[in-house]
Amino acid sequence: MQITNTQVGDVLEAVRTQEPLVQCLTNVVVTNFTANALLALGASAAMADLPDEAGPFARIAHGVLINLGTPYSEQRAGMLEAASSAQSVGTPWVLDPVAVGALPVRTQMLEPLLAYSPTVIRGNASEIGVCAGVDASGRGVDATVGVDDVLDAARAFAQRQNTVIAMSGPVDVIVAPDGRVAKVANGSVLLTKVTGGGCALGAIIAACVGVVGDPFLGAIAGSAIWALAGEQAQANCAGPGSFAVAHLDAVAAMTPASLARDVKLG
Amino acid sequence: MQITNTQVGDVLEAVRTQEPLVQCLTNVVVTNFTANALLALGASAAMADLPDEAGPFARIAHGVLINLGTPYSEQRAGMLEAASSAQSVGTPWVLDPVAVGALPVRTQMLEPLLAYSPTVIRGNASEIGVCAGVDASGRGVDATVGVDDVLDAARAFAQRQNTVIAMSGPVDVIVAPDGRVAKVANGSVLLTKVTGGGCALGAIIAACVGVVGDPFLGAIAGSAIWALAGEQAQANCAGPGSFAVAHLDAVAAMTPASLARDVKLG
Amino acid sequence: MQITNTQVGDVLEAVRTQEPLVQCLTNVVVTNFTANALLALGASAAMADLPDEAGPFARIAHGVLINLGTPYSEQRAGMLEAASSAQSVGTPWVLDPVAVGALPVRTQMLEPLLAYSPTVIRGNASEIGVCAGVDASGRGVDATVGVDDVLDAARAFAQRQNTVIAMSGPVDVIVAPDGRVAKVANGSVLLTKVTGGGCALGAIIAACVGVVGDPFLGAIAGSAIWALAGEQAQANCAGPGSFAVAHLDAVAAMTPASLARDVKLG
Repeated sequence: MQITNTQVGDVLEAVRTQEPLVQCLTNVVVTNFTANALLALGASAAMADLPDEAGPFARIAHGVLINLGTPYSEQRAGMLEAASSAQSVGTPWVLDPVAVGALPVRTQMLEPLLAYSPTVIRGNASEIGVCAGVDASGRGVDATVGVDDVLDAARAFAQRQNTVIAMSGPVDVIVAPDGRVAKVANGSVLLTKVTGGGCALGAIIAACVGVVGDPFLGAIAGSAIWALAGEQAQANCAGPGSFAVAHLDAVAAMTPASLARDVKLG
Repeated sequence: MQITNTQVGDVLEAVRTQEPLVQCLTNVVVTNFTANALLALGASAAMADLPDEAGPFARIAHGVLINLGTPYSEQRAGMLEAASSAQSVGTPWVLDPVAVGALPVRTQMLEPLLAYSPTVIRGNASEIGVCAGVDASGRGVDATVGVDDVLDAARAFAQRQNTVIAMSGPVDVIVAPDGRVAKVANGSVLLTKVTGGGCALGAIIAACVGVVGDPFLGAIAGSAIWALAGEQAQANCAGPGSFAVAHLDAVAAMTPASLARDVKLG
Repeated sequence: MQITNTQVGDVLEAVRTQEPLVQCLTNVVVTNFTANALLALGASAAMADLPDEAGPFARIAHGVLINLGTPYSEQRAGMLEAASSAQSVGTPWVLDPVAVGALPVRTQMLEPLLAYSPTVIRGNASEIGVCAGVDASGRGVDATVGVDDVLDAARAFAQRQNTVIAMSGPVDVIVAPDGRVAKVANGSVLLTKVTGGGCALGAIIAACVGVVGDPFLGAIAGSAIWALAGEQAQANCAGPGSFAVAHLDAVAAMTPASLARDVKLG
């Protein structure tokens, strides 16, 4: 059964009501923007990524984001702790496999992290392709392959891994373990001109899956909120600097009703 | 004797004249916003937190901030160095005990840091409560107890520790070792929707105590500048994204006269 | 022969066409702003600074920035790797020697990094003076000596080291190994009120030298783009917060023709 616009709006309503606490183990480029995106959404953010803190915190967080953008050795230890705790107590968690395949240290993190069963994996098509075993070498953060190139492999991988996959692109594509595929056609070209948009989206998805039982719905809602806010921000800016500011404003101003009305599901 | 509005305005005048150099050992989420807040204020910022650098730098800085938001092991060593140097040469320093009580690694830093006699401790009521020995478990960066719940304990602790305490909340409460209590009633609800507001306030207090002999006055002035700028920014924004931008603009535009006129002391 | 306005405009054209991938090993204060500056310019940014990743990445990047703002031990290892790789395969790279002379850990990095032959060294006059062997003690990130105080030493050092030097100040001065000196007289006083302006400039220079054969021209063009965008942003802001936002917007809006028309070379 397809996800409806109303269901997507209801996820935002649930976030605003429950104010989920989202633990982020993310990269040093985007920590500030990610925390501000979560606060604009109505969630709480905690960047608890230290060994001996990351594990315990993942037990009390509503959702966890593990983003491999700058995985220094201390943070890598924290990531394994957090993923293990999250799995053991059932905290939903999102893996953002930034630049896997292109860079070796984070690529070596992929297998142990996948063993802790991420609830959602969010990335661009290159990164999802690497996760799914497709030979898709990237050049870091930029997608060099398209969503369509890896969709079949992503569906097989989602089933095998029992995870939801959220592939970001001009149209976001979300894949469920049971084979369902949803598309979110909102967005803005300026999203590629601000760093950390995808990273922040991973955190927003973690907030959404933290308040709804269905991670497929949560991933769709997170993608919809972020992409629609970007669309609205584009109408309200003079370039990428003011776009990033307007993007946060638009997330905060969004209502469940406006989301349900304006999201373009496919 | 109560601090007057004129005295608070004079602190801003002193900051603008002396351009204090503030050393920040702070968390990776807020480094940029904190440095920009200091520059907007008219101070200089240096994020010197490496072992072998943090100690020597604390000897030449006008004020030091030690913020426990993301205390990686290398920074923890730098923090102990900086606090030790600051105490030994009399550089005023501010401790921001982010999430102590809730997370173990930083909680273990509390006792050794308190032994170096922070000039000011700035935190939310939960964090101040933990410092003061009140059983107030927090869930990280969010205050879960109110200022009134811990005020008595904070006063006793300020006297025992011979430190000024600045408790942030809808109304900021500043406590002197001699028992004086001041309140700053400016502010904005949007302050809770931007990450790092409290962290930046710690740095601004470090700048203020770096230019005045009385740390109680310095902590009041820092709280007043930041809260009043937030109040002004709220009138001038479309959400949390543009609020953060307007907040920095308002700090830079503030004059000693406008601060003395508009601060709401209690 | 002097560099012409048209040549400077052509560098921006080349950046927009080639979208150079710039690897940044930079400090935790400015990562976000630096990446956004590169994206606004039309380049790609990758903050690959881990040991075992930094070296391989420097082989495929078009330009590399090594900025000594917060050189934690793990990043220091990555910096030496990246500089070595860059030299060995001929990737142009920019050294930003933040606070050398004032702080010991980064000062110890200077000699080994210089041995890898940076293509461009960008800093304020204090930092360039230290590189050139002038006794110019700084107090960290703030220039305490002027460009004129160190120009002769910088010229001798540029020749000896066979590097381009870009000294930032009210007027930027760029020195070639062959003795040529160029000045860029655009800019804004607000550039000193936002953290990371110089750091971002280092990254922009890395993008420019990554697309042109002549690093002297690349350093001039990078300085011109950033300073002119600052000049335009000043006309369009209400303080340092909105200046930083408008600065990124102005970089993105700049065209090769407007750059060639408005740059003030001397």
